[in-house]
Amino acid sequence: MHLSHAHQASRLQLNDHGQLRHFLSTEGLSREMLTTILDRADSFLDGHGGIRNEPLLAGRTVMNLFFEPSTRTRTTFEVAAKRLSADVLNIDISKSSTSKGETLRDMLWNLEAMTADVFVVRHGASGAAHFIASQVTPHIAVVNAGDGRHAHPTQAMLDMLTIRRHAGGFENLTVAIIGDIRHSRVARSEIHALQTLGAKEIRVIGPRTLLPRDFEELGVNVFEDMTTGLRDVDVAIALRIQNERMESALLPGSSEFYGLYGLTRERLKVASPDVLVMHPGPINRGVEIESEVADGPNSLILKQVNYGIAVRMAVLAMTVEGQLAAQAAVQSRVLEGDAQ
Amino acid sequence: MHLSHAHQASRLQLNDHGQLRHFLSTEGLSREMLTTILDRADSFLDGHGGIRNEPLLAGRTVMNLFFEPSTRTRTTFEVAAKRLSADVLNIDISKSSTSKGETLRDMLWNLEAMTADVFVVRHGASGAAHFIASQVTPHIAVVNAGDGRHAHPTQAMLDMLTIRRHAGGFENLTVAIIGDIRHSRVARSEIHALQTLGAKEIRVIGPRTLLPRDFEELGVNVFEDMTTGLRDVDVAIALRIQNERMESALLPGSSEFYGLYGLTRERLKVASPDVLVMHPGPINRGVEIESEVADGPNSLILKQVNYGIAVRMAVLAMTVEGQLAAQAAVQSRVLEGDAQ
Amino acid sequence: MHLSHAHQASRLQLNDHGQLRHFLSTEGLSREMLTTILDRADSFLDGHGGIRNEPLLAGRTVMNLFFEPSTRTRTTFEVAAKRLSADVLNIDISKSSTSKGETLRDMLWNLEAMTADVFVVRHGASGAAHFIASQVTPHIAVVNAGDGRHAHPTQAMLDMLTIRRHAGGFENLTVAIIGDIRHSRVARSEIHALQTLGAKEIRVIGPRTLLPRDFEELGVNVFEDMTTGLRDVDVAIALRIQNERMESALLPGSSEFYGLYGLTRERLKVASPDVLVMHPGPINRGVEIESEVADGPNSLILKQVNYGIAVRMAVLAMTVEGQLAAQAAVQSRVLEGDAQ
Repeated sequence: MHLSHAHQASRLQLNDHGQLRHFLSTEGLSREMLTTILDRADSFLDGHGGIRNEPLLAGRTVMNLFFEPSTRTRTTFEVAAKRLSADVLNIDISKSSTSKGETLRDMLWNLEAMTADVFVVRHGASGAAHFIASQVTPHIAVVNAGDGRHAHPTQAMLDMLTIRRHAGGFENLTVAIIGDIRHSRVARSEIHALQTLGAKEIRVIGPRTLLPRDFEELGVNVFEDMTTGLRDVDVAIALRIQNERMESALLPGSSEFYGLYGLTRERLKVASPDVLVMHPGPINRGVEIESEVADGPNSLILKQVNYGIAVRMAVLAMTVEGQLAAQAAVQSRVLEGDAQ
Repeated sequence: MHLSHAHQASRLQLNDHGQLRHFLSTEGLSREMLTTILDRADSFLDGHGGIRNEPLLAGRTVMNLFFEPSTRTRTTFEVAAKRLSADVLNIDISKSSTSKGETLRDMLWNLEAMTADVFVVRHGASGAAHFIASQVTPHIAVVNAGDGRHAHPTQAMLDMLTIRRHAGGFENLTVAIIGDIRHSRVARSEIHALQTLGAKEIRVIGPRTLLPRDFEELGVNVFEDMTTGLRDVDVAIALRIQNERMESALLPGSSEFYGLYGLTRERLKVASPDVLVMHPGPINRGVEIESEVADGPNSLILKQVNYGIAVRMAVLAMTVEGQLAAQAAVQSRVLEGDAQ
Repeated sequence: MHLSHAHQASRLQLNDHGQLRHFLSTEGLSREMLTTILDRADSFLDGHGGIRNEPLLAGRTVMNLFFEPSTRTRTTFEVAAKRLSADVLNIDISKSSTSKGETLRDMLWNLEAMTADVFVVRHGASGAAHFIASQVTPHIAVVNAGDGRHAHPTQAMLDMLTIRRHAGGFENLTVAIIGDIRHSRVARSEIHALQTLGAKEIRVIGPRTLLPRDFEELGVNVFEDMTTGLRDVDVAIALRIQNERMESALLPGSSEFYGLYGLTRERLKVASPDVLVMHPGPINRGVEIESEVADGPNSLILKQVNYGIAVRMAVLAMTVEGQLAAQAAVQSRVLEGDAQ
């Protein structure tokens, strides 16, 4: 079942030539594909914290469909699309006609007819991006900007880019992800990407209530204790604790969480001396991470944000190119048919 | 009085050379002008569902002034303006200084001074676009994106473009408009456009409470019954039923409306076999229209949306050109005066 | 203390070569610098009410960070940035992660990492723009779009541009500012700019409760009476009365204010015959100013709005250039260090 799910996701994401046409999850994509995305993202980085603009999407329209608000992620996609010279439209879903009783499918079809080329989708329901990709007409590329607890693949890929640029590769790495793994789309996407890219060992660390139930299936090692979990790790990724979870029974209070799982200098002493410290942001200082660690020499938290622009540029450019190649193939088949 | 109203509207919309300088209503414009708009819109369509970009408004600023919210219409104007390389600003009227006691006229003057070239206006009050066009300084073009129950001329023109492209012309056509005619700015603008373009017969179909009181003056045939009203029609346009009206005493409940006036396959059997089915959107499936009709082979509903981009591009380009020609004429008169 | 404050502000605003790198307040800037800003703004005006576009910020990202809403000011910065070919992002602070417990500094660092070049900041707290400028990494330019009661320097500079263009200079001018001086960031910035630019006399006119307590320090002449205050003035600037103040005990009702301090034709009879009438907008007709004065031949109120685009273009261009020069200097020092 797990394989067939990955297989399905792969079929939807790729065109007949194996090129990316939607970017929905890291699951189901090959190591070659993930590496291509990282290489493409690398090509936009100028090495001085700047990003090279390329007018690859000039004349194309990217529509941000955010069914749940996220100024931060929406802004990164908007910057990325503009750096590719696309026209960007932020569709305010809450004010739009879905609230007037229009179905989601009708709304998508209407936006398509307004000559959209890419939908960047953020949705509170797991699987929403896949559903939307299955509904749109063939030439529209769908990029998942986070769906429920399922996937946040651009976040995962920017984390992979960060690791590759600062650790040189994945083969010999032990990576620990800390916090609320169970409810985290980021963790889920990271685990799939790290496995595909060949990380030596993936660990998850957190209280039992926040650990995944299917961890054996995921192929990760589970730790409830930071001292053993962080031992000799090369990369430590602290996840954001959602306030809404802290208020529920699932989690101890934020100071208690920090007491047990906060990423502190003291706790990192057992890790590799040049451990890379990462966090998807926005950080809660004194909850998941000590300020001195977040701002310290091993922290790559702001690099992650910067690389995120390049990764989103890569994914936008590649999915549009994949759609164009698929259309060209269809047209050439039609022409061949005509010629017979 | 009716004629003088049309005459007034015409004078405001055209410059001294008869070129479009505002686009406020289909009423008062000649068949030649409407045909020119359709031809210009056609020129932006590439024939494969795509739209040709042209940088006709590069360096110009289009301001969307939406006094009532409409994500859908605003988005189409934003896409159209960007495809012409204009800078687009969405002015959030509800948060702007009119709420601080500034008069509408002062707000307009201020926006003009910020170097606007076009105001796209949506307003809940009938006549608002005309009023605004009468207040702005001469070089600003005003495009009506819907005012009260009065007019929605770009919607009417995209419907005309749809009919012309799919029926070939207007002369031999019987067109039926179904639903809440009385409160519909779309119906009003369509009736004027169809009459001007020479449609053979225009029918309106709906419950007595929702039919116009001045129908004889409008020159349309009125039907309260779908079977007789749809007989042999070439085009059937279902209007959207506004929920707020359904909740009032004016309308039966939505299922009762569907029972009497829903556009179904069964009812369309009396129409022309290749009847064109249209709807301004967003559709209420099972209220105004049967899903199988909306998604069926005769439905042009999504084409309408697509053509709407081209029509808005045409109107934006033509009004700006009309304003520039008017300014040039004024300047040359000033220069001639200087020379004497 | 006053001098050291100005000195501090100056140090933060200029790079090592004395070029503008942030624009936070008119206080602390030299007459040469203010004149350079005015000259640069002048260069964007085409003399016919139009603005010359220049692609000076092509490929650069301007982020509008408005912690308090101001559609009007935000729109002017958006227009100005687009006329310089910048990408503009309006960050909706109220919906962004600061509301999720992220610190302001973390939010700024994140936005920087998204490759921002300029932050345009509006904030309800006095000193916020200075604080933000002190926190950002060196290559980000900060432009103050109004902070608390402290400063609104682009408004002051567009007023200076208006005066210079219509009065020819500052040396022989008597300028009166009327209304709620004490709470006005506009008045504060104007007074500093007028002093620096060498105005002959600066007067403030208003009820005692609304006059500054430190007026002697400011070097202005204070009048509670319009007849003596307006006598022989060359420029009369009416400030906007904030409704929230009128509702408090600080102010008489609006009609009582108008009766005492409204700028009327009658009252202006004692002023210079070609007195320039100005107002930062939006105007309250019949509260601060008589309609006939606002719309009369001496009024420059709409010119001010128009010049405001040019002033914002100048400040955006100059601060980015100042940052680039500072970076280039750092890099050349690094290279020299390498060479040794």
